[in-house]
Amino acid sequence: MKRNYKIYQMSFLETKENYKELNKDEYDRRFHKAVCLRITHSPWKPCLRLLTTILYSNRDAFLGLADCEVEIETIDNDVERFKLNKLKPFYEKRDKYIDNIDDFWKVVLSQNTDFANYIRASDFKYVDNITKVVVKWLIWDENSNADINVRDFSITFHFKGIEHDFPEQSITKVFKMTKMQSNKDFDDDDEAGEDNETIGVEEVLTSEPVDIEWPQSYESINPSLIEDKRSPQGKKNYRQGMKSFFGWFKWTGKKPGKEFPHGEDLASLLCDDIYPYCVKYYTEAQRDLEDEYSDSEDDNSDEEPLDLPKPEGEDEDGESDKLASKKRRV
Amino acid sequence: MKRNYKIYQMSFLETKENYKELNKDEYDRRFHKAVCLRITHSPWKPCLRLLTTILYSNRDAFLGLADCEVEIETIDNDVERFKLNKLKPFYEKRDKYIDNIDDFWKVVLSQNTDFANYIRASDFKYVDNITKVVVKWLIWDENSNADINVRDFSITFHFKGIEHDFPEQSITKVFKMTKMQSNKDFDDDDEAGEDNETIGVEEVLTSEPVDIEWPQSYESINPSLIEDKRSPQGKKNYRQGMKSFFGWFKWTGKKPGKEFPHGEDLASLLCDDIYPYCVKYYTEAQRDLEDEYSDSEDDNSDEEPLDLPKPEGEDEDGESDKLASKKRRV
Repeated sequence: MKRNYKIYQMSFLETKENYKELNKDEYDRRFHKAVCLRITHSPWKPCLRLLTTILYSNRDAFLGLADCEVEIETIDNDVERFKLNKLKPFYEKRDKYIDNIDDFWKVVLSQNTDFANYIRASDFKYVDNITKVVVKWLIWDENSNADINVRDFSITFHFKGIEHDFPEQSITKVFKMTKMQSNKDFDDDDEAGEDNETIGVEEVLTSEPVDIEWPQSYESINPSLIEDKRSPQGKKNYRQGMKSFFGWFKWTGKKPGKEFPHGEDLASLLCDDIYPYCVKYYTEAQRDLEDEYSDSEDDNSDEEPLDLPKPEGEDEDGESDKLASKKRRV
Repeated sequence: MKRNYKIYQMSFLETKENYKELNKDEYDRRFHKAVCLRITHSPWKPCLRLLTTILYSNRDAFLGLADCEVEIETIDNDVERFKLNKLKPFYEKRDKYIDNIDDFWKVVLSQNTDFANYIRASDFKYVDNITKVVVKWLIWDENSNADINVRDFSITFHFKGIEHDFPEQSITKVFKMTKMQSNKDFDDDDEAGEDNETIGVEEVLTSEPVDIEWPQSYESINPSLIEDKRSPQGKKNYRQGMKSFFGWFKWTGKKPGKEFPHGEDLASLLCDDIYPYCVKYYTEAQRDLEDEYSDSEDDNSDEEPLDLPKPEGEDEDGESDKLASKKRRV
C-alpha cells in the first residue's frame, strides 16, 4: 500500500513517464480504486487523507507542476547542448596549449585527491605516464543523430610507454546514459500488479569494456591472464585487477559488485570536474609545490649562489615527483 | 617576495585583470626585474627556478591558457544568459501553479534544513507566513543595459499578516555582483609598491538594505527601536535582531561581522537551490510527512473507520505544522 501511495505521488510530480500515461480519466479511475481498496486500512488513513486533500483540492496545479517537470528536462537539455557547442572549439584550442606543457596531466592527476580515491596507489606509476586526456561529447560527432543523449561522452587517455613493462597506447572509453530497471526501494508486497510497468525505470551511466594492454608488472592480477579464477588466490588476484585503474576500462555499469567499483563516479569526476577545471587544478598543484619548496628551503643558508634555471624543466622533475607522491592515497 | 611570486603566477593563469595589462614586453621587463631583484635570496631560489622553468620553456602555452581563462568566462556568461532566458517563461508559469497550492512555501521553507541553519528558530513563526517567493534575474528587465552582470538577481517575499503583531507585506531585496578589494592573503611586507593596482580585486555579492516592517513581538531586538545601542543589553538585543531573518533584509555584504552573518550564502541558497528546486523540496517534504504519519499510526487499532477527506485541506494543517516544527533547528 505504501508502494501504491508512492506511485500516485510520483505520478504527479516525479516520474514523467508515469504522468505521461495518466490522462485525467485514468487518474480518476486509479485514484478512486486506491481509495476504495484502502478505505478501511487505518494505518494508511492519514496518508490517504493527506493525499486526497492534496490531489482533490489542488489537482490542476499539481498537474501543471507535473508538466513543468517534463518541460524543465527539455530546457536542461537545450542549455547543455548550447553549452557543449560553445565549449567544443574552446576545448580543442585549450588541449593544444596543454599538449605543449610538459607533465601537465601528470601534475593534475597525481595531485587530485578525489581521483586518488578511486584507484590503487600502485596504479600511479602508470597514471604518471598519461600524457593526454581528452573528453569529447558524442553530440559533437557530425554523424550523431538528433536523439542522442546530450550527456553521452568519451574519454581518451594517451599513455607513454615504459620499456619492458608497458606499451605506449591511446585508449578511448565511451559512456552513455541508458535506461535501466530502477533499484528504487518500493515495498513489494500485496500488489505487484498493474502498476509495475509505470515505475522503476531510471537513466544510468553505462559503458562497453575496451581493450587496454596491461603492464607486465600486473601479470598476476591481469584478469585475462588468470587461469583459475575460482581458486582463493585466483579470486583474490582477479578482484585486485578489477579494482585497478586498468580494471576501470572493463567497467560496464551493468554488473554492480562484480567490476571496478564506482566506475560511473570516476567517469563523472573526469568528465564533469577534472577535464573542465584542469587548468585550475594544475595551478593549484603548482602553488602546493611552491609551498613545499619554501617550507623545505627556509632553514637553509641564506646566501647560496643560484644556478640559473634550465629551460627544459628537467631540474624540477625529480622534486615534483617526490612532492606529488606525498599527496597520494596510500 | 612571496607576494610578488604569487603575482607573477596569478598573472598568467588566474587573474584575468592582471594578465590583460601585461603584454609580452611588459611581462619580460617585470619578470627579469623580479629575477634580478631576488637572485641572491636563497629561500626563494627553488620558487624562482620552478617559475622560470615553467615560464621560459612553455611561455606561449601559458599565455594561451591565460587567454583561455578569459574566454571561458565569456562562454560561462553566454550559457548563463541563454539558460535564464529559457527559464523566464518557465518560472512565470510554474509560479502561477504554485500560487494555487496552499502552504507550498511554508512546507518548502520549514522543511529545508539548510535554510534553517541561517536564521533563528523563533523566526519560523514569520517564515511560515511567507505565501510567495519569487526570484527574478535583473537581465530579464527590458530596461536593463547590456553590461549588467548576468548573476544579479532579486528575491521577493510575500508575507501574510498576523493580527496585532505583523502586517501583510511584500519585500523585494536586490543582489548584485560588485567589485571589491580582495581579502586574499598576500604577505604584505617589503614591496607594497608598483604591482598593487594589479591585484586584490574580486567580485562579491552585495545588496542594499530594504525596509521591512518587523513584528511587534520583536520590539526589543528591532534595531531601529533600540535607543541605546551601546549599553550591554542594547548591544545584545541589537545583535539578536541582526541575526534574525528580518536582519537579513538590512544585509549589505560590505560590513562583515557587523550585520546578518553569511547573508550572501542565504541569498545564494534561495536563488540557486531553493527556488529552482522548490518542487523537488515540496515533494520530499510530503514524503517525510507520509513517513511521520505512518510511524505514528502504525501502533493504532487496525479497523478504525475512515472519515472521508475534506477537500479544502484544513484537516492536515494542524498536523503538518506539528511535523514541520520537528525539523527545525532549535
